Amino acid sequence: MQTALARSTEATIEVCGLDLCDEIMGHVPLSGVAFLELSGRLPTESELRLIDAMLVSLVEHGLTPSALAARLTYHGAPESLQAAVAAGLSGLGSVFVGTIEGSARLVQEALRDDDGTADLAQLADELVARSRAERRFIPGVGHPLHKSGDPRAARLFAIARDAGLYGRHAELMELVGAAAAVHYGRKLPVNVTGAIGSLASELGFPWQVCRGLGVMSRAIGLVGHLAEELRTPLAGEIVDYAAPVRPTAV
Amino acid sequence: MQTALARSTEATIEVCGLDLCDEIMGHVPLSGVAFLELSGRLPTESELRLIDAMLVSLVEHGLTPSALAARLTYHGAPESLQAAVAAGLSGLGSVFVGTIEGSARLVQEALRDDDGTADLAQLADELVARSRAERRFIPGVGHPLHKSGDPRAARLFAIARDAGLYGRHAELMELVGAAAAVHYGRKLPVNVTGAIGSLASELGFPWQVCRGLGVMSRAIGLVGHLAEELRTPLAGEIVDYAAPVRPTAV
Amino acid sequence: MQTALARSTEATIEVCGLDLCDEIMGHVPLSGVAFLELSGRLPTESELRLIDAMLVSLVEHGLTPSALAARLTYHGAPESLQAAVAAGLSGLGSVFVGTIEGSARLVQEALRDDDGTADLAQLADELVARSRAERRFIPGVGHPLHKSGDPRAARLFAIARDAGLYGRHAELMELVGAAAAVHYGRKLPVNVTGAIGSLASELGFPWQVCRGLGVMSRAIGLVGHLAEELRTPLAGEIVDYAAPVRPTAV
Amino acid sequence: MQTALARSTEATIEVCGLDLCDEIMGHVPLSGVAFLELSGRLPTESELRLIDAMLVSLVEHGLTPSALAARLTYHGAPESLQAAVAAGLSGLGSVFVGTIEGSARLVQEALRDDDGTADLAQLADELVARSRAERRFIPGVGHPLHKSGDPRAARLFAIARDAGLYGRHAELMELVGAAAAVHYGRKLPVNVTGAIGSLASELGFPWQVCRGLGVMSRAIGLVGHLAEELRTPLAGEIVDYAAPVRPTAV
Repeated sequence: MQTALARSTEATIEVCGLDLCDEIMGHVPLSGVAFLELSGRLPTESELRLIDAMLVSLVEHGLTPSALAARLTYHGAPESLQAAVAAGLSGLGSVFVGTIEGSARLVQEALRDDDGTADLAQLADELVARSRAERRFIPGVGHPLHKSGDPRAARLFAIARDAGLYGRHAELMELVGAAAAVHYGRKLPVNVTGAIGSLASELGFPWQVCRGLGVMSRAIGLVGHLAEELRTPLAGEIVDYAAPVRPTAV
Repeated sequence: MQTALARSTEATIEVCGLDLCDEIMGHVPLSGVAFLELSGRLPTESELRLIDAMLVSLVEHGLTPSALAARLTYHGAPESLQAAVAAGLSGLGSVFVGTIEGSARLVQEALRDDDGTADLAQLADELVARSRAERRFIPGVGHPLHKSGDPRAARLFAIARDAGLYGRHAELMELVGAAAAVHYGRKLPVNVTGAIGSLASELGFPWQVCRGLGVMSRAIGLVGHLAEELRTPLAGEIVDYAAPVRPTAV
Repeated sequence: MQTALARSTEATIEVCGLDLCDEIMGHVPLSGVAFLELSGRLPTESELRLIDAMLVSLVEHGLTPSALAARLTYHGAPESLQAAVAAGLSGLGSVFVGTIEGSARLVQEALRDDDGTADLAQLADELVARSRAERRFIPGVGHPLHKSGDPRAARLFAIARDAGLYGRHAELMELVGAAAAVHYGRKLPVNVTGAIGSLASELGFPWQVCRGLGVMSRAIGLVGHLAEELRTPLAGEIVDYAAPVRPTAV
Repeated sequence: MQTALARSTEATIEVCGLDLCDEIMGHVPLSGVAFLELSGRLPTESELRLIDAMLVSLVEHGLTPSALAARLTYHGAPESLQAAVAAGLSGLGSVFVGTIEGSARLVQEALRDDDGTADLAQLADELVARSRAERRFIPGVGHPLHKSGDPRAARLFAIARDAGLYGRHAELMELVGAAAAVHYGRKLPVNVTGAIGSLASELGFPWQVCRGLGVMSRAIGLVGHLAEELRTPLAGEIVDYAAPVRPTAV
């Protein structure tokens, strides 16, 4: 069996054809290695700036369901920090974070045969109308807290523009947000997962792996939560809130 | 590669040497199949009664950390019920449920070279004294809620006695509870995981797999919690309690 | 917060309104408790026979992807058996086992407004024709090994008939298999997950939780695989096959 | 409930007291955010260089047990990429990667009361002698493939020296490797997890969270493996190798 990702001898390790010690460590930052893993090549300077900002934007979001699940798992199995991170990641599905996949799929499928001349505003309007007719949820727009606009999305699109990487996938995504506002009669601006899904599409990542960007980021943030849980535990308080009579589990 | 657990042809499936359809389904109940998986042979009538009660005792314990983690994971990824159960199981470690392993190890190691003549009360006293001196936690005794005695443990020991399967591992475990009360000056009766760990030892299961009994049981209970979560969701309430400003995650 | 599944005091534990120690342990077998968790009531004698056979049928399937993932995880973290089971369960998705959900959904949605007079053969024909037109996979039919018929499915339907629980969901599922054979020009008999999905529908379980039956069963089987891995490890052989130069990971 | 990691309003998100959009995204690279999550403060330039190299060194290691488990899980549940990463991470325990924790603990406990005057060579000799007497495994030394020395460890120590961050924890770890060679009569140089464990100690991370560094890195690498699995699947080949008769699971 062969993987193109790595090859090792007794004295050397190659990752995607580069010497890990001589050409990667100390030369390519972590986000660049993430890009290398996904694309098989190093990012350009602009691509690196963009993917780094994308990954950074999702690391930390406070006491999300995912962070709570990780902390509760750590509470029962502190000797297996990796299992607590795994538990936290398991919830990054269709409702939270995994929506990166949905928004990437939306714009990639819509632009699959695009030759650069499609009317994006019209396309966005059709996508939203169809979603609404089929009572499907539009991935990547709206946010329960950031109702007037997700500041991370705005920042990511700005960085993409500045890096010369804001293309038709990103534009379509923003137009979908605008069309959604019209169809639903309330503000539904692109949120951080919509921005990441569409910008990942600009970077050439297939939609099937795009939620992986959120998984990478959140793995880092979950370790942060467990480090805090070690210092100042919160899990017991959640348990007490849920089952004030005290748990019967042993 | 070979497993002794199963063998299949186009028309038949054998599990541990028995025909699954003709000799197991409809003939051996689920707990018996669990015993078969662990021992490679069918249980006797008495063994079946005991393992069934052991497995039944741990299925459900209310809103434990594990159940909460499963519900929070389901909240984010309702399309992956299996991942929510996986998240819930991940916390069955050294603090909850996994203590079955600790108590099984305690009695199995203590009785490894036992020829049936060791003074169990003295052995129990030594085990507790040593744990205390090394500031180690004694697995399988005490309970935050059931302070005067865990009713499940009493019931399991009674069933074991009745089935003629109460032996020296179980006796030693109960004596450890009694010795702990003397050394620590407060009631520390054997809890359900201590009962299961010692009775699993009577059934001949190696301590390394004994927490697997709790994992089997709890997998069933966690599916029950997710079925309830589908009908009457609680996860959102936990999230609101933890982060009342509303989550920033999308 | 309240769960209807359990309630505890210092001296008692209730599960679904029954006293765990006095009314469940030693009286209701494990499969019956699984039914209780899902339905909130005890099964009848017939329901118990059926759910027990359903759960038993899926416990063990040899070296499946799920069993291999569990063994590989145990190889790296033998101190966390629960995490290895969790890893194995995580793969019970849309391709394996999770198809229980798909087949349950298929028959439940098709019979939602059924008053007992719908022509099931015609309904099956329409379902298959539509799936084929939309290039969607029909869940619960066909099997890579058991090409002429999955012996577990036949056995489960026989037990259901015998128990008086073979109803229109089960009949529709078998007719879907027959219709699929006509449309695709090859044998596509109902497999074990199709049988379980349709029989779970007879038992009144909502399709969203039906894959949970496979999760319960397989959790038991995975512990069996880890117990075997402890005695006769296979994981190292898989690793050597995959990366014969030896792993570089430490 | 309060976490010091994040705070949000409708228009802003703060991570560890910094504005996520204005002060972190585009300014602090991913490794710096990882440091921030663990320490609550931004790294210095030198600390950033070191943690970045540490994290980069562990991202990719080819077809490790962890990567195989992730690929096998994805094979069954391709709709839940996050669950496949979770399965892969679950095996980062006491045998692989989790040894970071062991080596960090070794040097942190040995130097807890160190005032900078302890004789490190003597300390290393005592640590190895004690481990050997107690038949305990020394974490962080030796490697099945890189027998003459793990090139990643050498590179990490060089970067640490260059950054002025090579201190007594790192020195002690290297001396432990040297002492192990004397006691065991064969080369046992510090491996990558020993290097990371000791350098994480230089950065002030408590040993209990140090395996989290490997978890962060490997989460990135596992997404890379799943992206490759999507393009050129290997899981089926493993399944065929393990169960050539074909799986019976559906």
